[in-house]
Amino acid sequence: MRLVTFTRPGKLQQEVGALGEGDVVLDLAAAEPLLRGQSMLDMAAAEPALLGKARAAMAKAPKVEGAKLCAPIPRPPKNVFCVGKNYHEHAKEFAGSGFDGGAKDVVPPFPVVFSKPHTSIIANGEKILGHLDTTGGLDYEGELGVVIGQGGRGIAKAEALKHVFGYTIINDVTARHLQKRHSQWILGKGLDTFCPMGPAILTADEVPDPTKLVLTTWVNGEQRQHAPVADLIFDIPTLIEAISAVITLEPGDVIATGTPAGVGIGFNPPIFLKSGDVVKIAISGIGVLENAVA
Amino acid sequence: MRLVTFTRPGKLQQEVGALGEGDVVLDLAAAEPLLRGQSMLDMAAAEPALLGKARAAMAKAPKVEGAKLCAPIPRPPKNVFCVGKNYHEHAKEFAGSGFDGGAKDVVPPFPVVFSKPHTSIIANGEKILGHLDTTGGLDYEGELGVVIGQGGRGIAKAEALKHVFGYTIINDVTARHLQKRHSQWILGKGLDTFCPMGPAILTADEVPDPTKLVLTTWVNGEQRQHAPVADLIFDIPTLIEAISAVITLEPGDVIATGTPAGVGIGFNPPIFLKSGDVVKIAISGIGVLENAVA
Repeated sequence: MRLVTFTRPGKLQQEVGALGEGDVVLDLAAAEPLLRGQSMLDMAAAEPALLGKARAAMAKAPKVEGAKLCAPIPRPPKNVFCVGKNYHEHAKEFAGSGFDGGAKDVVPPFPVVFSKPHTSIIANGEKILGHLDTTGGLDYEGELGVVIGQGGRGIAKAEALKHVFGYTIINDVTARHLQKRHSQWILGKGLDTFCPMGPAILTADEVPDPTKLVLTTWVNGEQRQHAPVADLIFDIPTLIEAISAVITLEPGDVIATGTPAGVGIGFNPPIFLKSGDVVKIAISGIGVLENAVA
Repeated sequence: MRLVTFTRPGKLQQEVGALGEGDVVLDLAAAEPLLRGQSMLDMAAAEPALLGKARAAMAKAPKVEGAKLCAPIPRPPKNVFCVGKNYHEHAKEFAGSGFDGGAKDVVPPFPVVFSKPHTSIIANGEKILGHLDTTGGLDYEGELGVVIGQGGRGIAKAEALKHVFGYTIINDVTARHLQKRHSQWILGKGLDTFCPMGPAILTADEVPDPTKLVLTTWVNGEQRQHAPVADLIFDIPTLIEAISAVITLEPGDVIATGTPAGVGIGFNPPIFLKSGDVVKIAISGIGVLENAVA
């Protein structure tokens, strides 16, 4: 099931729906009263039985006319956790670019984790405000996002995937010069609109093995990134174990797992994004996240 | 006025009060119906007139029997913004300690900003779970915390102090080995209980010049840090301008402004915290934040 957060024409209230055939938004709550008033955070926190009811509701759920997609989790409990340098080929291109101010190792010995605040999250189709980076170093990073279901601290690697509610797509948009000059990355990566997320959350029950997912990124139709999640340096269970060892994870927390090779600074000279550019990221089974630079 | 968030015996509901003489908690809402049901985030977002009503209510507000203090902002809109290496003498001691994995410059040319999630926030008197740092590098950092009132993006330095709701005390507790090994700092600094905050927010109207505030930290009664806020490398207006240039600040967002010299890794060899140690931080006018290591 691909769950979405949406609004109806003229309404501000965010609701949870599912994508049906042809990517129409299905009104689950109209078919299943138990789902009325539930947010995606509620869904992530709920018992699996509620997901079962949502799935059963799909067959009789009417289409929502004029639904507008929001980010699936517009406001996670915490800033989005993001992982840096987590694909071998990307770690190399980043090290070679000169933009990694803090680098000692090309391949990090431990996960490199930073965060992006909720104010950076935008939906599929919304625009990236590139002008907020006044230093001319706008870059994209296509990433698999992991959404936590059951929370906890001290989640062991072997149990970690049981704590995953589902998977989404994230563009870890980055202002490269700010990333370098501030040394810690929130000001170079947490800019307003710099965390496109969506279009949907593919529920974990439909992803028996997330390493089989494949990510592809295009800029203006030109393919730039293409890699299986199997290429992660620190895999999803390792990331969940490392973060939850010290920080209590909550339902709806999001972990952006890192980007493969092929970002703008991987070129020599770097190719930065400019106004009008369109970044499209696809992950098998989840869908396509497409955002233009304003 | 020193505002606090508190709970009553046997209740979970958090309420806003003020500290009166002898640090008793005054029940503002009992004296001023407009304050009923207001959280500290509501207060930070409110028009100054509401603060005036709160102040007027103090004279007739009854004492809350058995009030238990919470952190003044238990759940800011975003992770707490924290600033690294923001006092000259501390920047030197940190550089000399070998714990700054990413350092190139002793004094950073731009503010170094990272974050701590709300799950790290604890109240005055609550215990720091030192055992979460299994690497034996537990350290303290006494800091002035700035609480945002009116939010916004692109706040100019000259206007910045008008956006401050008040000031509190923060202990930026740090696991030094984790800070170094993960290179980005959220996993070394964002551990559960590693952000003691409180006891109160001193409202900005009583702080005409925050550079005049003086911070002192003791460990087990021994003075370790003592510095005026005037010694900040990047002062409060500069920090608000730098962050809000790219990230929309919201009422109740918190910025921990950095720590002066005298932390545990400033000693040779380092003196790390151990179970039973008590860290006490005082800032003139705000009060005392005291937390023991469990």
